[in-house]
Amino acid sequence: MDLGTIFGIVAGLSLITGAVILGGEMAIFINIPGMMIVGGGTIAATLITFPLGEAARAFKAAWLVFMGTRQDPNDLVRIMLRLTNLSRQQGLLALSNIKTPNQFLHKASQLIADGSDEEMIRNTLRIEIESLKHRHAVGQDVFRKMGTYAPAFGMLGTLIGLVQMLQKIADPAALGPAMAVALLTTFYGSFLASLFFLPIAGKLKARTAQEVLNLEIIFEGAISILDNNNPLVVYEKLSSFIAPSRRQRMSLRGIRSA
Amino acid sequence: MDLGTIFGIVAGLSLITGAVILGGEMAIFINIPGMMIVGGGTIAATLITFPLGEAARAFKAAWLVFMGTRQDPNDLVRIMLRLTNLSRQQGLLALSNIKTPNQFLHKASQLIADGSDEEMIRNTLRIEIESLKHRHAVGQDVFRKMGTYAPAFGMLGTLIGLVQMLQKIADPAALGPAMAVALLTTFYGSFLASLFFLPIAGKLKARTAQEVLNLEIIFEGAISILDNNNPLVVYEKLSSFIAPSRRQRMSLRGIRSA
Amino acid sequence: MDLGTIFGIVAGLSLITGAVILGGEMAIFINIPGMMIVGGGTIAATLITFPLGEAARAFKAAWLVFMGTRQDPNDLVRIMLRLTNLSRQQGLLALSNIKTPNQFLHKASQLIADGSDEEMIRNTLRIEIESLKHRHAVGQDVFRKMGTYAPAFGMLGTLIGLVQMLQKIADPAALGPAMAVALLTTFYGSFLASLFFLPIAGKLKARTAQEVLNLEIIFEGAISILDNNNPLVVYEKLSSFIAPSRRQRMSLRGIRSA
Amino acid sequence: MDLGTIFGIVAGLSLITGAVILGGEMAIFINIPGMMIVGGGTIAATLITFPLGEAARAFKAAWLVFMGTRQDPNDLVRIMLRLTNLSRQQGLLALSNIKTPNQFLHKASQLIADGSDEEMIRNTLRIEIESLKHRHAVGQDVFRKMGTYAPAFGMLGTLIGLVQMLQKIADPAALGPAMAVALLTTFYGSFLASLFFLPIAGKLKARTAQEVLNLEIIFEGAISILDNNNPLVVYEKLSSFIAPSRRQRMSLRGIRSA
Amino acid sequence: MDLGTIFGIVAGLSLITGAVILGGEMAIFINIPGMMIVGGGTIAATLITFPLGEAARAFKAAWLVFMGTRQDPNDLVRIMLRLTNLSRQQGLLALSNIKTPNQFLHKASQLIADGSDEEMIRNTLRIEIESLKHRHAVGQDVFRKMGTYAPAFGMLGTLIGLVQMLQKIADPAALGPAMAVALLTTFYGSFLASLFFLPIAGKLKARTAQEVLNLEIIFEGAISILDNNNPLVVYEKLSSFIAPSRRQRMSLRGIRSA
Repeated sequence: MDLGTIFGIVAGLSLITGAVILGGEMAIFINIPGMMIVGGGTIAATLITFPLGEAARAFKAAWLVFMGTRQDPNDLVRIMLRLTNLSRQQGLLALSNIKTPNQFLHKASQLIADGSDEEMIRNTLRIEIESLKHRHAVGQDVFRKMGTYAPAFGMLGTLIGLVQMLQKIADPAALGPAMAVALLTTFYGSFLASLFFLPIAGKLKARTAQEVLNLEIIFEGAISILDNNNPLVVYEKLSSFIAPSRRQRMSLRGIRSA
Repeated sequence: MDLGTIFGIVAGLSLITGAVILGGEMAIFINIPGMMIVGGGTIAATLITFPLGEAARAFKAAWLVFMGTRQDPNDLVRIMLRLTNLSRQQGLLALSNIKTPNQFLHKASQLIADGSDEEMIRNTLRIEIESLKHRHAVGQDVFRKMGTYAPAFGMLGTLIGLVQMLQKIADPAALGPAMAVALLTTFYGSFLASLFFLPIAGKLKARTAQEVLNLEIIFEGAISILDNNNPLVVYEKLSSFIAPSRRQRMSLRGIRSA
Repeated sequence: MDLGTIFGIVAGLSLITGAVILGGEMAIFINIPGMMIVGGGTIAATLITFPLGEAARAFKAAWLVFMGTRQDPNDLVRIMLRLTNLSRQQGLLALSNIKTPNQFLHKASQLIADGSDEEMIRNTLRIEIESLKHRHAVGQDVFRKMGTYAPAFGMLGTLIGLVQMLQKIADPAALGPAMAVALLTTFYGSFLASLFFLPIAGKLKARTAQEVLNLEIIFEGAISILDNNNPLVVYEKLSSFIAPSRRQRMSLRGIRSA
Repeated sequence: MDLGTIFGIVAGLSLITGAVILGGEMAIFINIPGMMIVGGGTIAATLITFPLGEAARAFKAAWLVFMGTRQDPNDLVRIMLRLTNLSRQQGLLALSNIKTPNQFLHKASQLIADGSDEEMIRNTLRIEIESLKHRHAVGQDVFRKMGTYAPAFGMLGTLIGLVQMLQKIADPAALGPAMAVALLTTFYGSFLASLFFLPIAGKLKARTAQEVLNLEIIFEGAISILDNNNPLVVYEKLSSFIAPSRRQRMSLRGIRSA
Repeated sequence: MDLGTIFGIVAGLSLITGAVILGGEMAIFINIPGMMIVGGGTIAATLITFPLGEAARAFKAAWLVFMGTRQDPNDLVRIMLRLTNLSRQQGLLALSNIKTPNQFLHKASQLIADGSDEEMIRNTLRIEIESLKHRHAVGQDVFRKMGTYAPAFGMLGTLIGLVQMLQKIADPAALGPAMAVALLTTFYGSFLASLFFLPIAGKLKARTAQEVLNLEIIFEGAISILDNNNPLVVYEKLSSFIAPSRRQRMSLRGIRSA
């Protein structure tokens, strides 16, 4: 559970709702046709922009942001050190027995254990990382585009409302409420973009960065195993990926017996 | 047939039309001179911006989005494995008999069968991929530019309408409808950009990404054939291009007898 | 003569003029001080932004867009094949007699005939291509910047008009026409940007891409000559630069006797 | 203490406050619900966009901008020269006794003293630099995003105010003050973005550039030590990072006895 | 003296002033508090964004744009040819006696004369070029940011004016002039950005490009001297940096005796 996301959404919703209620009734901010123009238009434009599968994957990824737990990079450093020690003591073949839920680590271990040549392993793992980056970039793009479509359809709705209102300009008393209704779609569009679509796109980007960092640790660790590097040196290299303030210092003995 | 695109366009059009009808008559939203300024101006600016051939190609590409069927990358992995096995059993020359509607795969097979050196094959195929990327980028650019020209000419039309309206400010009763007409061009411009031009540019981008991914699988497969790699290793490398959730697992036997 | 550009400009101008005349007299859209603010301000800002020589070169390049004829890349492929055959039959020195109006091709031939080493030739030709790209990018930038300055000075003019108008708010009858005049500069600025500056910047970009593609064909051809490649292979490589739909297929015999 | 930052904030606040007081009472610019929408909304959206830890780190980094002192690159050049001389006189092992508060320099010295191979040291130090760049880029991004969220929530607040105001259009006397209140949130949003969030993002970027420059000096110095370069040559290389006007010229003797 | 810059500024100022005077008195466009908000706010935000030293350097660079004279790249080609001939006749050591006001050329000559190895010279000169590029990019950034802060503070000033004006909505006669005053800050902000800050940023960019081109000629010339290249070949390579229309053709004899 990502507390920041949930707290942010609850706080943002409360603040806006509070401001609305404080200034009058909630009801004047509810306009079903306007919601349909903004919500429906945004979904329609998104479905034209992205293949169905990619749009669906983006929403699934956004859902995982709330649910998913991420792996501490320090743990991965420790795992890679263990594999380094293992391969130095029992040979590369020993890596074939590794059990891990991490698909990328599993693939790296298998490739090493199979005795593939380094160039090939490097290529294969790089392709995995780049493909993941590309797929995640599409996911962020889905929400970023929704964050531009929502205000655009909000403005479209307001234009429709204004054109209709200006026809009835003879009745000045009705102008105010009619214009208020016209403005509502702009409000819906900005609201959705600023509190949901754009922030979620940002969080997906941050999650991708964390995940890619983990993959890079595994990648560099795998290369070090192939080069038969000293565990101390491997530790120095892999821990460089982590911010000094979060890096877990390991003792010499800890590294050697990881 | 791309269902997402068609559903998106139908849904978007229905929503906007519904909102228009719900609030009054449809007729007040139809203004032929305004449509000519926005539609004609956008086409005029696009013809100045892009060579005729490139603009035509972009529209043809957009049409293919509705019609074209795309190749499953899993199939391509399987095809490349078959070629790998074939070349290992019967030599590189066997690739000269390959029949495929895929022009890029055909070219790659011929180059390999002709015994060209690896550097040359790599260069030639890279040029093909980069040229295709460049041409497709131009196609996306055509629609992206149309997505900026349409609102710009919409605003120009509104300015023309406002200037004309302000001359007759003495008659307040006529102001409302005149202003409504002036706003219509802005409405047309935003509508075209948000529901057609920008989303189509996005879909073209997504299609290019899928097509380039397929070319990359063929490219890496061809290089592996030249390097005489083991089919198991080739499978590991090529399947890395595909999202794990879509990757079709193949058995050892399947790979060897592909 | 670039028909698309000319048609686009004529069509755009006619549409806007038509819309203006349809709605009243042309005269109310003509305001000399406003034109001076937008036109003069844009030129002034452009002269501050770019060195005189570069601004002049950009306008010359824009003029060439109307006049210049471009070389078909298929012709260049054929020329490079002829040079390949020539150098294989008569030695690299034979290239010193080549007559061509293409300066880049001339330079490449001379460097090869002079027996310079490959690294040096590669470097020299790369510098030529990159320098041309850089110079052309500046030319596009001149028009792109004019496309942002024009609306900016349009808005400045409107602000000046509004401030002056608001002083005389006591006379409501004069407000409308005064505001109409104020809006004219915004109209001029958007008009110039949307129908001239931004589209011309786009066309210059497209022309640069076509020219660079031609240079790349010559470059890769020259490298192939130095590497003494087979003409068939050279054909495969060079034709990869051209879209399959535009590629001119050549017979084996045609390639060998090019 | 960064005087520019403090002076800028004090001057900006004074100017705006002065303009407010000069034109009437301060009180009309204070609106608690409006402040909550803008301030709270911005914080909410930021918490959704960034993981909690990264948002916190960004604020800590901004705080350090006021407090932190930065290291003069000339000093680092001198330190690296001293290490060069030391390693040439007493061997690489002598670097293991270096005491320095600079963690990166410490790590570089240890790696050299441990006799790791050059490729490994290069990799490890590069990862450190790239990781730091990435982390700092996130910090800048936090403030840049806040600089876009603040005006967005400002506009949202104004829309809410306008909709509520337009309901009561029957009472024209109340319209003015109600609209003034509605505009306040836009004012708050722009104010926060222009005087705080965007400038602080800029300063963080400048600080990162200075810090990275220092790391690059250490990096290139370390490589030179490994390559056993002449101190004179090392001085020429490392001083190239510093602007000629700020470069401290060192005498030959100074370099040799650094 | 850069005539384009001076002419542009004079012309732009005259046009705007002319338009102002033509439409009434100059006095209504002068508002000291408004000027302070825009000018002072822009300076304040700039001081927060950039370290003092970098902001000062940007202004010094802008001043040099008016004053500085730039070196013709053709002259540099000739100088590099002279050094090439010199080094081929008298050995690399002869370069140690070169006298030149160009610091980069001086450094390159010294490094070559000192007999440093090529890799080291390449690295050192590259660092010089990249550091200069980075410093100049910061200078451009200072003016580009001022070009975004000025309109932002202009809008802030207008918002302040509007809020104050709307309090006194009871007196309609005073509304017009009050609103005119409010609009003035927006006018100031756009004016400063469009005629000064953004164009100066552009000119700094153009100057940097010219300067970097000169450094690249020296760099490539220095590498050619190290590689002991033929002066004819060096001429072909170095002249490739210059646009064909500006390139000074040199005779064979001229090159050999440069």
